[in-house]
Amino acid sequence: MITLASDFGTPYPAAMKGVLLGRTDARLVDVGHDFPRQDVRATAFWLREVLPYFPPATHLVVVDPGVGTDRAALVVEAGDHAFVAPDNGVALPVAREVAGDDFDVYEVEYEETPSNTFHGRDVFAPAAADVHDAPAVTAVDRIAPTDEYVDLAFPDPEVGEGTATGEVLVVDGFGNVVTNVPGEFLDGLDRVSVGGEAVPVGRSYAAVDPGGRVVTVGSHGNVELAVNRGRGDEAFGFEVGNAVSLERA
Amino acid sequence: MITLASDFGTPYPAAMKGVLLGRTDARLVDVGHDFPRQDVRATAFWLREVLPYFPPATHLVVVDPGVGTDRAALVVEAGDHAFVAPDNGVALPVAREVAGDDFDVYEVEYEETPSNTFHGRDVFAPAAADVHDAPAVTAVDRIAPTDEYVDLAFPDPEVGEGTATGEVLVVDGFGNVVTNVPGEFLDGLDRVSVGGEAVPVGRSYAAVDPGGRVVTVGSHGNVELAVNRGRGDEAFGFEVGNAVSLERA
Amino acid sequence: MITLASDFGTPYPAAMKGVLLGRTDARLVDVGHDFPRQDVRATAFWLREVLPYFPPATHLVVVDPGVGTDRAALVVEAGDHAFVAPDNGVALPVAREVAGDDFDVYEVEYEETPSNTFHGRDVFAPAAADVHDAPAVTAVDRIAPTDEYVDLAFPDPEVGEGTATGEVLVVDGFGNVVTNVPGEFLDGLDRVSVGGEAVPVGRSYAAVDPGGRVVTVGSHGNVELAVNRGRGDEAFGFEVGNAVSLERA
Repeated sequence: MITLASDFGTPYPAAMKGVLLGRTDARLVDVGHDFPRQDVRATAFWLREVLPYFPPATHLVVVDPGVGTDRAALVVEAGDHAFVAPDNGVALPVAREVAGDDFDVYEVEYEETPSNTFHGRDVFAPAAADVHDAPAVTAVDRIAPTDEYVDLAFPDPEVGEGTATGEVLVVDGFGNVVTNVPGEFLDGLDRVSVGGEAVPVGRSYAAVDPGGRVVTVGSHGNVELAVNRGRGDEAFGFEVGNAVSLERA
Repeated sequence: MITLASDFGTPYPAAMKGVLLGRTDARLVDVGHDFPRQDVRATAFWLREVLPYFPPATHLVVVDPGVGTDRAALVVEAGDHAFVAPDNGVALPVAREVAGDDFDVYEVEYEETPSNTFHGRDVFAPAAADVHDAPAVTAVDRIAPTDEYVDLAFPDPEVGEGTATGEVLVVDGFGNVVTNVPGEFLDGLDRVSVGGEAVPVGRSYAAVDPGGRVVTVGSHGNVELAVNRGRGDEAFGFEVGNAVSLERA
Repeated sequence: MITLASDFGTPYPAAMKGVLLGRTDARLVDVGHDFPRQDVRATAFWLREVLPYFPPATHLVVVDPGVGTDRAALVVEAGDHAFVAPDNGVALPVAREVAGDDFDVYEVEYEETPSNTFHGRDVFAPAAADVHDAPAVTAVDRIAPTDEYVDLAFPDPEVGEGTATGEVLVVDGFGNVVTNVPGEFLDGLDRVSVGGEAVPVGRSYAAVDPGGRVVTVGSHGNVELAVNRGRGDEAFGFEVGNAVSLERA
């Protein structure tokens, strides 16, 4: 099984599928091709949320603002998963989620001069097909272990006595503001103060009336600032990277 | 075969696919993940239009504004199709389209405490895999018949002597205004009056010049208000739920 | 293998998938359903870029502004590929890319009166399934050779001594302006004048600082006007069909 994730929209992913299908009989599964454009950090977050739910698979990930530079192409092997991705950190959070620090990184040597603008088709897709079909990553000819790679980690929150200070990691398509504060911070609370204003804590978005603000625990286990049937980012005035302070109210 | 329909966009559907593929070898088919956000009624309409064209299948449907409340999770079995969906009526119109009133409804008991915000991954996907692989819905452990469920039906139009009064059921992505007036109302007519203004009746959008308004019969068999290569909703000034009066002109 | 390309968005492609799966066991591969709405020319360009990367396949292509008129339904057979598409030229550029002038065109006779608004479901999908499963296109009952069809070709650029005059063929989703000037024009150049202003020539978008303009060779081999991590169409002020003059600077 090979999954595909990119920020390509339509139609570039199809060229990757064509290349894959010309090399392997693997089942292809679209993870999505609308990841935030050239946003390595948000993509890394989302991949960490969704890819661990897959059975053993090769994951082709192409969000690649550095395409055409000399940034390397990597295979990150973690548990039963292999992530084939540019060397910009995009695959590291999910690899750690799957395997802790017990993962291996390989560099892919280009077999020929590819285009300078579409390595997804010319470098990553062929590598993903080869990795999928090989008995082991090390059995693929032009792939060699490396310990030099771009790492990426999400910041840790500061959680103290009744207060937590964290950061907005990402805003999802519904407008839900995802922080790095662990959901446990809300245990036993009915309300929490966000930037000085008390907001109800709910088990779900629907815990408040439509249009109302709510602080909840998202499917990722983190504190999320949301509006029932509305957009939390607009209501709370937060965007990615903003600091978030929560206090027991 | 399991089809997937949701309003999740990217990347949440991938988590459902991962869960499904970890449980079943079924073929997965994306129906779409851009259904109108949290719009049960429009999704119900579109599912009724497209799912009956599938061969026997299990259909995983997650448009779920009530996620995290105590709304039930259902399996609706109709003919050779099983719809796994939240108890908000979204699967009822398509079930009736497939099987008239001869369908059965089951409630899914959660096997463990799931997340409160992502039942698509934690409740509906596992249930869909189990239903798909079981010899019968009744053979799945934690599923039991129920006759309490939220129903959903589209309003009937009033069709009289030369006049029809109906409602806008949905506006599609092209801007075509889909009404509940049956296409037969246009039989033999060259023009029809919409809100007092005569508009040509055409066999297709292209029956009028680009930019021109046209009343036609959509692929669903209902009267549609459209603009050739333009947006009917803007030209006619209609949105979902508006009353529509048609008169022979 | 059957690939699907359309401008239908959600959910109409699902009806085509249902019809296909009711007739054939072929693997289905989404090329994309967000091709520019009713834009035959841009779709033809993109299909030429991506479909040749596929192994032998039947390609179902439905971008069809003339649906419901008497425009024919075609099968274009080129090398190991068959394109099932409306007779509006959309499949011709990719057919020529795959097979030069050595392709055959067939007309599909509708087997019954279909809907007038959704031939993708009622005409093209059944035809694609039949073509895929038949030993040869000529073995399909209601398909007959034709030499009358709408052709479509992209304009040739004028490339002279140090100057090239071409046209904007398409703008991709990233805002990159794709011209018909061959990439070789940039060989050995560090800068090129676009409309009188000198712009750096780069091997990739990232050859210039973020926000900077760059002229490069796209994955299609043509000259592309781009902005690193920005939109070339806005920065250069170009849209599809505009003339583009390049001079060695």
